[in-house]
Amino acid sequence: MGELMDRSRLEAFSDGVIAVAITLLALDLTVAGPGHGKLAHQLGEHWPAFLAYVISFFTIGIIWVNHHALIRTIKTVNRTLLFLNLLLLLFVVLIPFATSTVADYLSENNGDARVATALYGASFVGMSIGFTAIFEWTLHGHRVYQPLPPEQHWAARARFVSGGLVYVAATIIALFNAIVAFVIIGLVAVYYIFERTPRHADGDTATATATARARYPDT
Amino acid sequence: MGELMDRSRLEAFSDGVIAVAITLLALDLTVAGPGHGKLAHQLGEHWPAFLAYVISFFTIGIIWVNHHALIRTIKTVNRTLLFLNLLLLLFVVLIPFATSTVADYLSENNGDARVATALYGASFVGMSIGFTAIFEWTLHGHRVYQPLPPEQHWAARARFVSGGLVYVAATIIALFNAIVAFVIIGLVAVYYIFERTPRHADGDTATATATARARYPDT
Amino acid sequence: MGELMDRSRLEAFSDGVIAVAITLLALDLTVAGPGHGKLAHQLGEHWPAFLAYVISFFTIGIIWVNHHALIRTIKTVNRTLLFLNLLLLLFVVLIPFATSTVADYLSENNGDARVATALYGASFVGMSIGFTAIFEWTLHGHRVYQPLPPEQHWAARARFVSGGLVYVAATIIALFNAIVAFVIIGLVAVYYIFERTPRHADGDTATATATARARYPDT
Amino acid sequence: MGELMDRSRLEAFSDGVIAVAITLLALDLTVAGPGHGKLAHQLGEHWPAFLAYVISFFTIGIIWVNHHALIRTIKTVNRTLLFLNLLLLLFVVLIPFATSTVADYLSENNGDARVATALYGASFVGMSIGFTAIFEWTLHGHRVYQPLPPEQHWAARARFVSGGLVYVAATIIALFNAIVAFVIIGLVAVYYIFERTPRHADGDTATATATARARYPDT
Repeated sequence: MGELMDRSRLEAFSDGVIAVAITLLALDLTVAGPGHGKLAHQLGEHWPAFLAYVISFFTIGIIWVNHHALIRTIKTVNRTLLFLNLLLLLFVVLIPFATSTVADYLSENNGDARVATALYGASFVGMSIGFTAIFEWTLHGHRVYQPLPPEQHWAARARFVSGGLVYVAATIIALFNAIVAFVIIGLVAVYYIFERTPRHADGDTATATATARARYPDT
Repeated sequence: MGELMDRSRLEAFSDGVIAVAITLLALDLTVAGPGHGKLAHQLGEHWPAFLAYVISFFTIGIIWVNHHALIRTIKTVNRTLLFLNLLLLLFVVLIPFATSTVADYLSENNGDARVATALYGASFVGMSIGFTAIFEWTLHGHRVYQPLPPEQHWAARARFVSGGLVYVAATIIALFNAIVAFVIIGLVAVYYIFERTPRHADGDTATATATARARYPDT
Repeated sequence: MGELMDRSRLEAFSDGVIAVAITLLALDLTVAGPGHGKLAHQLGEHWPAFLAYVISFFTIGIIWVNHHALIRTIKTVNRTLLFLNLLLLLFVVLIPFATSTVADYLSENNGDARVATALYGASFVGMSIGFTAIFEWTLHGHRVYQPLPPEQHWAARARFVSGGLVYVAATIIALFNAIVAFVIIGLVAVYYIFERTPRHADGDTATATATARARYPDT
Repeated sequence: MGELMDRSRLEAFSDGVIAVAITLLALDLTVAGPGHGKLAHQLGEHWPAFLAYVISFFTIGIIWVNHHALIRTIKTVNRTLLFLNLLLLLFVVLIPFATSTVADYLSENNGDARVATALYGASFVGMSIGFTAIFEWTLHGHRVYQPLPPEQHWAARARFVSGGLVYVAATIIALFNAIVAFVIIGLVAVYYIFERTPRHADGDTATATATARARYPDT
């Protein structure tokens, strides 16, 4: 009873931080006001800001959905979990800054654009590390309601790490080509939105997946 | 039990995002400080900002009331609903930016004022699309506690879509006359605040309405 | 059951808006950075900002405590209550803007300081109107768990209105003397923080008070 | 029942304020945009901002964990507690301002850097005072589920006060050497993150500690 309440306060605080971070993304969207050229022209020039807003909004939204799914499998909360969760939130809160920076520099298409996109990718890498650390924590002790059998740990880890590796790849690619890296980061968001749990997949994978992610019916 | 908790976390996150977005509206309200002319004069010149603040505040407030009423009819949450909800929130979070832009440009009464008001209307169109998508989702499967009979779906849809169509009309009108469009958007807010559920209306409509909107006593 | 959840979502949303508004107060606190004179000097010149921050913080805090106490007496939520609550929040959200303006202008000690302080007082008048409207709503129908007997309505109203009248007085005084008005608004906050429910007062007043405000033991 | 709900709204509001404050920290992180020198160079020059962000983020996070642990021991909420909690939040909300100021001035390494770091330390001193006041409140009356025996009060107080005294020391040291004070504040955060409850310590201390802080298993 007490433990359930703990988990619910962990969720409430995380929801609060994620909700503020996702809303602060829109602070990047501004126009200079009257006397700084045609409004339509200003809005047109800000296309990277709008695109980065949409990508970051859905990426943070996906984090929220997955955080939700992972945390609700947890039976007991300890201090280690609270600090791993803070680590995840530390990077989530950086995303509006990274989004703003990539929006400012992307259309420059120069060295600064590459640095800005690498920073953007790195903020998602950090977030993946925080999320994977929480997942790793759930694999040990008696911390979740339905623990994964040890022989499935590596399959489940592989799944988590592969998502993070795409961001690592995007961050490295950013140092050579900002636009390609930016497109990859956008495609990851699109992929996760339309991703479906393989319902008729073989048992092992399905179980690993079910524990690691949301288990909602997809009717 | 588990499912109810899901819904409550969906509500908590949505409440958080809407609460932050509604509060960020006030960031648009600023004066330039000492040395930029009489304060009373500055405040007077900012009338579009104050008016836009009040309209957007109540419009977001109405979204919150209706979101509240719609979500509490839902029995099970799935990933599709979570992403439709993110789509709604994506547009809610854009409203402070659109409000700020219309506040800056409305009194110019030129082409830029028309673009700004169209942007303002478009953010409400987007929000309506998100909200209608969630409503459409509730019509299928066994997702709500008291499903609407199929023969009432079109009446209920018509009701939802009509609200959105007013915003579509306002967005188009904005391209010709910013003030008229702005007044229409304001009147929609006034209409929804004073709107009452028809209590003695004929059965079908009343049922459709009751499912689609808040069902509070109006004593 | 369903009704309790309604009330809890009303509370959660209000808490969210109030929490964001109280935190945004601190955005007023800034210094110009290196190259704009001694930091100690800059901080010293900002005394109105720090003082206004503390006053507004505790005033919003008091609103939250009283809102909490009032809402928990409520049995059923209807649309009217939701919109009266939005009206209250509309003014709460204005307080950071009014605080920022009074902080900018107070030390000017001129006509602008008087306008700014009147604006500051007016934001609290608006908030009092919203709060009194919610209280008035609780007096009618069967909306609270332990309704006040009708013969005690006027005593309870007098109590609510008197708080609001101090803000009306401060707003009018502000037009003549900004500092006096500012001090009055500060003293109201101090008064409410140290105020105690009269425990051995005569029955009628005690009951009216108990319904209208927090009923916590003061041991 | 009613009392539990009270406590839960106190937690919800505090979580909201802390969540917003922790997220606003990231507003300090900005770069000047294209045309203001190499982005990599700008980011490098902002190292104090990034370091201060991480320190403040974890320090607020620790406050949240400890607040959580302390509040859940409480049985009944009264007005005094609500205002002591507001006092704590008043200083929590100041932390983003203090963080931003120290980030702006630290690398100047002059008198202003010392004032900024003292301000930073003082915001944590204020926070410690608020937190200690809440703890002191829990020692009296029948306010917690498992009250500490009176003979253990001083040991528990010593523990709380010692944390605050490190911030007092850092604030005084800041007036002589900004960097040393800043490092101390950072080390306090690191210490609390890795701190573990002494599980096999002698009874008295263990009990005092268990009431004063989180009691999560550390498996």
